[in-house]
Amino acid sequence: MYGKERIYKKLEIIGVSSKGIEGAIQTALDKARSSIDKLSWFEVQEVRGHIGEDGKVAEYQVVLKVAFQIKE
Amino acid sequence: MYGKERIYKKLEIIGVSSKGIEGAIQTALDKARSSIDKLSWFEVQEVRGHIGEDGKVAEYQVVLKVAFQIKE
Amino acid sequence: MYGKERIYKKLEIIGVSSKGIEGAIQTALDKARSSIDKLSWFEVQEVRGHIGEDGKVAEYQVVLKVAFQIKE
Amino acid sequence: MYGKERIYKKLEIIGVSSKGIEGAIQTALDKARSSIDKLSWFEVQEVRGHIGEDGKVAEYQVVLKVAFQIKE
Amino acid sequence: MYGKERIYKKLEIIGVSSKGIEGAIQTALDKARSSIDKLSWFEVQEVRGHIGEDGKVAEYQVVLKVAFQIKE
Amino acid sequence: MYGKERIYKKLEIIGVSSKGIEGAIQTALDKARSSIDKLSWFEVQEVRGHIGEDGKVAEYQVVLKVAFQIKE
Amino acid sequence: MYGKERIYKKLEIIGVSSKGIEGAIQTALDKARSSIDKLSWFEVQEVRGHIGEDGKVAEYQVVLKVAFQIKE
Amino acid sequence: MYGKERIYKKLEIIGVSSKGIEGAIQTALDKARSSIDKLSWFEVQEVRGHIGEDGKVAEYQVVLKVAFQIKE
Amino acid sequence: MYGKERIYKKLEIIGVSSKGIEGAIQTALDKARSSIDKLSWFEVQEVRGHIGEDGKVAEYQVVLKVAFQIKE
Amino acid sequence: MYGKERIYKKLEIIGVSSKGIEGAIQTALDKARSSIDKLSWFEVQEVRGHIGEDGKVAEYQVVLKVAFQIKE
Amino acid sequence: MYGKERIYKKLEIIGVSSKGIEGAIQTALDKARSSIDKLSWFEVQEVRGHIGEDGKVAEYQVVLKVAFQIKE
Amino acid sequence: MYGKERIYKKLEIIGVSSKGIEGAIQTALDKARSSIDKLSWFEVQEVRGHIGEDGKVAEYQVVLKVAFQIKE
Repeated sequence: MYGKERIYKKLEIIGVSSKGIEGAIQTALDKARSSIDKLSWFEVQEVRGHIGEDGKVAEYQVVLKVAFQIKE
Repeated sequence: MYGKERIYKKLEIIGVSSKGIEGAIQTALDKARSSIDKLSWFEVQEVRGHIGEDGKVAEYQVVLKVAFQIKE
Repeated sequence: MYGKERIYKKLEIIGVSSKGIEGAIQTALDKARSSIDKLSWFEVQEVRGHIGEDGKVAEYQVVLKVAFQIKE
Repeated sequence: MYGKERIYKKLEIIGVSSKGIEGAIQTALDKARSSIDKLSWFEVQEVRGHIGEDGKVAEYQVVLKVAFQIKE
Repeated sequence: MYGKERIYKKLEIIGVSSKGIEGAIQTALDKARSSIDKLSWFEVQEVRGHIGEDGKVAEYQVVLKVAFQIKE
Repeated sequence: MYGKERIYKKLEIIGVSSKGIEGAIQTALDKARSSIDKLSWFEVQEVRGHIGEDGKVAEYQVVLKVAFQIKE
Repeated sequence: MYGKERIYKKLEIIGVSSKGIEGAIQTALDKARSSIDKLSWFEVQEVRGHIGEDGKVAEYQVVLKVAFQIKE
Repeated sequence: MYGKERIYKKLEIIGVSSKGIEGAIQTALDKARSSIDKLSWFEVQEVRGHIGEDGKVAEYQVVLKVAFQIKE
Repeated sequence: MYGKERIYKKLEIIGVSSKGIEGAIQTALDKARSSIDKLSWFEVQEVRGHIGEDGKVAEYQVVLKVAFQIKE
Repeated sequence: MYGKERIYKKLEIIGVSSKGIEGAIQTALDKARSSIDKLSWFEVQEVRGHIGEDGKVAEYQVVLKVAFQIKE
Repeated sequence: MYGKERIYKKLEIIGVSSKGIEGAIQTALDKARSSIDKLSWFEVQEVRGHIGEDGKVAEYQVVLKVAFQIKE
Repeated sequence: MYGKERIYKKLEIIGVSSKGIEGAIQTALDKARSSIDKLSWFEVQEVRGHIGEDGKVAEYQVVLKVAFQIKE
C-alpha cells in the first residue's frame, strides 16, 4: 500500500470507563465505531479521572486521537 | 453520572468578534450550536487578532476546543 | 471583512504522497475538497514518512490542520 | 531588593466565575488570600469554561499559578 | 453548581506501586487522602518506572496532579 | 494579495495595563505603533499579572507577538 | 552512590503487545535486555495502538525511553 | 573561531512564496538581507499556507528564526 | 526500597541569589528545608535573572520543582 | 503482523544536503542505511539550515528520528 | 510602578563564552548593552555548546531572551 | 564544509557530578568519549539533582544530547 496517494482524518474523542485506562480506550473505540466504519489507529493525548467520595478512582477519562482512511 | 461508560467528541473552532476575548468565545459557541445540539465545555487554545489601520484591535480570533457528549 | 462576527472550523487530516512534502500537502487538500467546499488555510503539524526496502523514502505523510469558514 | 537571597513559592489554583476571564482570576486571588498573606504575581496556565443549556458560557475556569515570597 | 464562584487547588504528587499504572494512581490517591478530605479529579503528568535486576518492571511511578475544592 | 512573494517580521512585546487583558493588548499596540507604521496581527503568548497589597490584580501583563509586513 | 561521577545513556524504543499498556512496556524491556545488560529505569513518551477489523485494540504501541549506566 | 566570546541575534520572520517551502525560505532570506548584512543560519518554526479558490496551495508561509553575529 | 507502595509530593519554588545558578538552587533548598524535613530531589524548570543598572546580572532566579516523600 | 509482540528502536540523526528538505532527509537515510539493515519510518523533528555569503541557503539540516525493528 | 501603562520589548540573543553558563549569559548582556541602554531581565531559552578536539567543552552557547522597557 | 552531504547522530546521555552543572556536562563528555571518537556539540535537555541528608545538593544530573558526525 505504501506510496499510493491517500488521506486520513483524525478525530479527538474522550472515552470514559470505570474499568481502567485500557477500558476507557476501548469504550471510546466502541462508540466511535457506530458512526465511523473502519478506524485505523489511536494516539493517547491525556489520561485523567474523577475521584469518588470514597477516595477511589470513580472513572478514567482518556482523551484520544483516532484516525481512519477517507475513501473517495 | 460518574462511572458510567460514555464518550465525548472535541471539535476545534475559531470564533471571531470585535467584542473582546469573551465575545469571540461566545460567537464561536453561538454558531457551533446551530449544528451541535448540546455543547458541554470549551478550552481556549490560542488568542490572536487583527490590527486595523488605526492601530486598534479590529477583531479578536480565539481558537477553541469545544466538547459535547455523543449519544448512542 | 475584519471585525465581522464569524466562525472557522479546523480539521486534522494526513496527506500521503510519494511526491515530496508539498505533494503530500496537495494530496490532502485535493481529497478534503471533495467533502468541504471552500478551504481557507492549512498548518503543518508533523512530517513523517515510510522508508522502502531500497532505503528510499517510499512516501511522505504530512499531518495538517485545514481551516474553513462555517456559513450560517 | 534585587540581589538579596530569597525564595518564592508557586501554587496552582483554579478560579471559577461567570464574570469573564478577569472575574475568574480575581475570584481565585480573593479566596487564595484567606490562607496566604501576601500574593505577589500570577501566571495564567489555561482558560476553559462550562457551556450552559442555553449555549451561553455558564462559567469561566481559569487555571493560574500564584506566587508569594516565603519569609524565614 | 455551574456558575457559582469557587476555587480549586491542584497538587502534584507521585504514586508508586508494583501493581501497574492504575495501581500507582490509586496509591497516590489513598495516601493523599489522609491529609486532604475530598479530592475531586486527577490528571496524569508522567508515567515512569524502575527496572529490577531481573529486567522486570519493579515499580510504576506515576506523576499526577490532583485537584480539590477549597471551602471558605 | 495571496501568492505574491513578501515577508513579515514578528516582534515580541509586553503590554501592561490595569484595564484587563484587552487593555494590556491595546496598550502594547498603541506604544508599538509609535515606531512601526503598520502592524498587521498579534498572537498572545502569555498572560500574567501583579497582585497589589489589597489582593486585587494591580496590573495585567500580556506577552504578545506582533507582526507587520516589511516593504522593500 | 549519590555524589559519585557517573554517566547514563537513554535509548528510545517502542514495545508492542496486545496485552495492554503494561504488557507493551514489559515487551520492550524483555527484548531490550537481550542486548543491554542492566536497564535502570524507563519513561513513557507516547501511548498509541492499532485498531483491528472488529473495532477492538489489536495492539498497544508504547514509546519508551530506557536508561542504563555506562561502566568505564 | 570556537571559544571566542561573541554574540548572535535571532529575528523571527515569515517568508511567503507560491514556490514551495524552500521557495518561501529563500524569499525570507532575500528580503531580510536588504537590511542585515550577513545572516548565519535559520530555523523553521512553522509551515502554513493559503488555499486558493481552486483548492490548490496559493502560497506557502514559512515562519523562520534567522540568526546573525553582532559585531562590536 | 523499590517496589514498595509510597508517595512523593512536588512543590514549585523559586530560589534567588547573586551567586550563579547553583547558588540560586542552593538558596531555594536551604530555605525550603526550614519547613520540609527531608527533600529528595529537584528539577530545574526555568532560569531567569534581573539585570542591574551596570548591565551585570544582579541576581539569578531559578524556578525548581522539589520532591520529598510523604510518610504516613 | 498486528498483535504480535515486537520491538522497534528509534535513532536521532541529522541529514545535511544542499538539495532541499527532501534531499537532506534522503541523505540521512542513505548514510544511516550503511549500518542499519532495514529502516522502517522517519519523523522530522527540526528543519534548519546554513546561509551562505551570497544570502542563499547553503545547506538544509534536517533532524530526523528513524525507526527500525529489532530482531531477536 | 505597578499599574502604570507601559510596554517592554523582548529580544532573542545568543551569548558565547568558554567561561561556563554564567559567563555566556554575561557576554550576551555586555554586548547587547552597547546598543540598548537599559536591560531589565533575561530568560534562558537553551544551553548548548561546542566540544573541542580534546573532548572538553570549547564554549558554552546560551540562547537568552532579554527584555527592556520602551520609553515613549 | 557547508553544502557537502553528510550525517550526524545524536545520543542522549546523563552526566552526574557533585561539581555543578558544568561539572556534570564535562563528566558526560569525558565518559562518552571513551566509546565515541569525535563529539561535535551538545544540547542541555534537563537539569536535575539529588539532595543530601544535610539539605545540600549532593549531585547534579544533567541530561544532554551529544552529536557527532558519522563517517562513511
